Amino acid sequence: MNTSLINQLTESVGTDKVSISEGDLYRHSRDESSHPPVEPDVVVYPESKEEIIEILRIARENDLPVTPFGAGSGLDGHAIPINKGISINFERMNKILSFNPEDLTVTVQPGITRKQLNKSINRHGLQFPVDPGADASIGGMTATNASGTTAVRYGSMRDQVLNLEVILADGSVINTGSRAKKSSSGYNLNGLFVGSEGTLGIMTAITLKLHGIPEHTVTARCTFKTPKACAEAAQSILMSGIQVLRMELVDADSIRQVNLTGEHSFPEAHSLFLEFSGTVASAEEDANLTKELVLEHGGENWERADSAAESNELWRARHELAYSFRHIKGMANSGGDVCVPISQLADMVVYARKLIDESGLLGGVFGHVGDGNFHTLVVYDPGESKQASASARINDLVARKAIEVGGTCSGEHGVGLGKMKYQELEHGAALSVMKSIKQLLDPENRLNPGKIFS
Amino acid sequence: MNTSLINQLTESVGTDKVSISEGDLYRHSRDESSHPPVEPDVVVYPESKEEIIEILRIARENDLPVTPFGAGSGLDGHAIPINKGISINFERMNKILSFNPEDLTVTVQPGITRKQLNKSINRHGLQFPVDPGADASIGGMTATNASGTTAVRYGSMRDQVLNLEVILADGSVINTGSRAKKSSSGYNLNGLFVGSEGTLGIMTAITLKLHGIPEHTVTARCTFKTPKACAEAAQSILMSGIQVLRMELVDADSIRQVNLTGEHSFPEAHSLFLEFSGTVASAEEDANLTKELVLEHGGENWERADSAAESNELWRARHELAYSFRHIKGMANSGGDVCVPISQLADMVVYARKLIDESGLLGGVFGHVGDGNFHTLVVYDPGESKQASASARINDLVARKAIEVGGTCSGEHGVGLGKMKYQELEHGAALSVMKSIKQLLDPENRLNPGKIFS
Ligand SMILES: Cc1cc2nc3c(=O)[nH]c(=O)nc-3n(C[C@H](O)[C@H](O)[C@H](O)COP(=O)(O)OP(=O)(O)OC[C@H]3O[C@@H](n4cnc5c(N)ncnc54)[C@H](O)[C@@H]3O)c2cc1C
Ligand SMILES: Cc1cc2nc3c(=O)[nH]c(=O)nc-3n(C[C@H](O)[C@H](O)[C@H](O)COP(=O)(O)OP(=O)(O)OC[C@H]3O[C@@H](n4cnc5c(N)ncnc54)[C@H](O)[C@@H]3O)c2cc1C
Repeated sequence: MNTSLINQLTESVGTDKVSISEGDLYRHSRDESSHPPVEPDVVVYPESKEEIIEILRIARENDLPVTPFGAGSGLDGHAIPINKGISINFERMNKILSFNPEDLTVTVQPGITRKQLNKSINRHGLQFPVDPGADASIGGMTATNASGTTAVRYGSMRDQVLNLEVILADGSVINTGSRAKKSSSGYNLNGLFVGSEGTLGIMTAITLKLHGIPEHTVTARCTFKTPKACAEAAQSILMSGIQVLRMELVDADSIRQVNLTGEHSFPEAHSLFLEFSGTVASAEEDANLTKELVLEHGGENWERADSAAESNELWRARHELAYSFRHIKGMANSGGDVCVPISQLADMVVYARKLIDESGLLGGVFGHVGDGNFHTLVVYDPGESKQASASARINDLVARKAIEVGGTCSGEHGVGLGKMKYQELEHGAALSVMKSIKQLLDPENRLNPGKIFS
Repeated sequence: MNTSLINQLTESVGTDKVSISEGDLYRHSRDESSHPPVEPDVVVYPESKEEIIEILRIARENDLPVTPFGAGSGLDGHAIPINKGISINFERMNKILSFNPEDLTVTVQPGITRKQLNKSINRHGLQFPVDPGADASIGGMTATNASGTTAVRYGSMRDQVLNLEVILADGSVINTGSRAKKSSSGYNLNGLFVGSEGTLGIMTAITLKLHGIPEHTVTARCTFKTPKACAEAAQSILMSGIQVLRMELVDADSIRQVNLTGEHSFPEAHSLFLEFSGTVASAEEDANLTKELVLEHGGENWERADSAAESNELWRARHELAYSFRHIKGMANSGGDVCVPISQLADMVVYARKLIDESGLLGGVFGHVGDGNFHTLVVYDPGESKQASASARINDLVARKAIEVGGTCSGEHGVGLGKMKYQELEHGAALSVMKSIKQLLDPENRLNPGKIFS
């Protein structure tokens, strides 16, 4: 262990912000994926931009990589420091720097989680709607261009970010945007840094759009005979122009799994979970129009949530879904996150479900079908190499097929370690432009090396 | 004149696609701004991507700049070939390459105009809603990240673009995205090329999101005693969460001007023009809620358009507004396009109006206040240097103030020639990142040189 490095760090930012404890090294060696853990040399808990500039200077002097770490809920190893070095944890940088309700904006430090943020602002009638299943940090969500169940209405992180304060690898600080709602002034650096997975710069402040909390919401679910019918109904709703707040496909196997672990009792059939919001009149109208459409398109029923409690249970179950597959004792899993043109959705869902069925493994197909984005999660026994490769094969085939039909290997989770192998296939010649931008902004490959590109 | 250049071009793409006619050189020397015209050496009308690759090769061999030219409706000299060279006109590349109603997407060549596109797709119940006042080309709109009256609902061009086929300066071809609605796979090149004003690459195909044509719209207008009251009412509507399709501020001087040139008879008072859309029930509800709010916030009246004809006249007048100031015989003009945080809007509008009033010049304040974006247009006699500098001074002060209060010098028109001087002030250290990206992708500064950066 490098005592000089630790000394430099403690001298520069203070002993209480530098850790080489077993627990800290372990925690920062992994995320929610099954990628092999790698421990950093040291974990630092900075409290300011200035401290991060110092940490970067020390990293350069010691020629060590730096990997930002949010809440560690990433699903593809993004925050694993595969070349060791310094892991930066933002949990002490979790403040709201400025709240501007009259602008519908807020500026936060990256370590605040989405739930912490909403807790502070909901009482002002405002919300930040992007909701990955986990209580992720806003920094991590920005770095992965996260989205979730409400993206069909509000878009993903990239649509929410107005400005980022970013520290570049050389220690210089830039602001990528402004507080204006739109701009045609200069190149769009906001969009470039959102989704760059900590490989281009370290975000220290994030200005987000906020949204009013709708007066009224209607939650409903509906079952279908086949996953295909589910996806086709979803497509017809989208094409009708009805404004949905949420539209999730959850296949029968996923419902069974979440019933089991969460003590719910949803009917174990392929389902759409839907939500509408607005004024009372408009949300009710949207729900009623959708009900008609769904019943015309193979929907077997239409169950409205009778109370807020019932609606909360439904969305809690949806958010627990991934955990219910991921946290089966002794089992590992591999997941997919494709997003395809809406016209391809039904075929893709059928294809994915068939591959899982044929493998004999436990797994689910579910996701944000309002955007053409869905997940495959396949559980395997890590001691059984055949199972592991069968599971990997399913997600591999689904990712390749998604790219083939005009889609992407990642709708929202990001590339991390697991989807590097599809970058060439998906982006072709554009990949070399991406690599040259990385080379331009981080010539020493110091920031989160080995992610997105090999 | 360089006959070898012309020979190379005609040999490579055909005589009928190469012009050095006086009319062509004149037309490609200017746009809708008052920047001094500069004629290109030659204008080329390619019909395919392959021909553009050839044109770029010839440009490299002759060490000449290349400037893309859309419809020439830009307002800051973006398409003026200030270093001469080759002007590429896309009017023969105006085809729909693939129309996918079931995906709500379309892929077009860059030369198609927004009206041509809508003419083809409206009969399928779909629209492309971004509507700058001019009938601009989709290529030009993408290159400037244009928006217009509907951005408050649908966003700007950057929010519409799913994929771009782009030819880089070295002749290589990339695709910047996919046909999926969202993606977290790799760096966001879509967003980088949108708004790059022809300086990073030449777009040859553009995949756009489409939107359903709403069942019902309600158009209304309302007058106010002061521009400040107008802007404050706009802010209260935005904060209420009511979904507007359009919300335009038009000050009394602007109304007077458009009445004069367009033979309209709108009341010559500071006004909001509003539109709501959706189902009959939801659009009517939104309109009624807004009416209440507006009357509480200083609105003097609420005039609904009684018929489609009346509503069309209103939006036609709004679109003619800029022309009505710009095309006054013998007069020149200078314009502004700031966008500010909503909380700053009322003060900014008052500031701009006061500057115009004090100057004694003819001018208007109007714009897309739903986004915090508004224009100042000041008319002057180009023979009177005092008028010219007074007019420039107004727009200069407004731009600087907008940046000071957290906004941008350009909400939608782009930088071009006129807003280069604000780039340092607005972007600070980020400007050098932008410049280095330009240097990376176009090291010989061949593509539209002298724009965005000096
Ligand atoms: C049960 C479950 C459900 C999920 N559902 C969804 C979903 O619906 N949608 C979705 O999009 N994701 C989902 N995820 C994935 C995950 O929550 C997201 O990827 C989230 O954005 C990760 O945020 P984090 O704070 O945990 O970041 P981490 O995993 O800690 O890090 C992610 C990346 O962000 C970088 N990073 C973190 N902070 C900074 C910073 N300040 N500056 C620069 N880079 C930084 C890291 O280096 C890393 O590359 C789910 C995960 C789980 C476990
Ligand atoms: C009356 C009036 C009202 C207007 N109202 C609005 C408004 O409300 N909102 C708004 O945003 N704008 C508005 N504008 C400005 C103008 O219409 C927009 O900037 C429009 O996007 C320009 O498109 P164009 O096709 O005319 O492009 P041009 O002016 O011809 O070119 C603009 C830029 O695009 C580049 N370009 C063109 N094609 C390509 C290509 N294929 N590849 C790469 N680069 C390319 C050019 O090099 C140039 O830099 C208005 C203009 C007028 C005259």
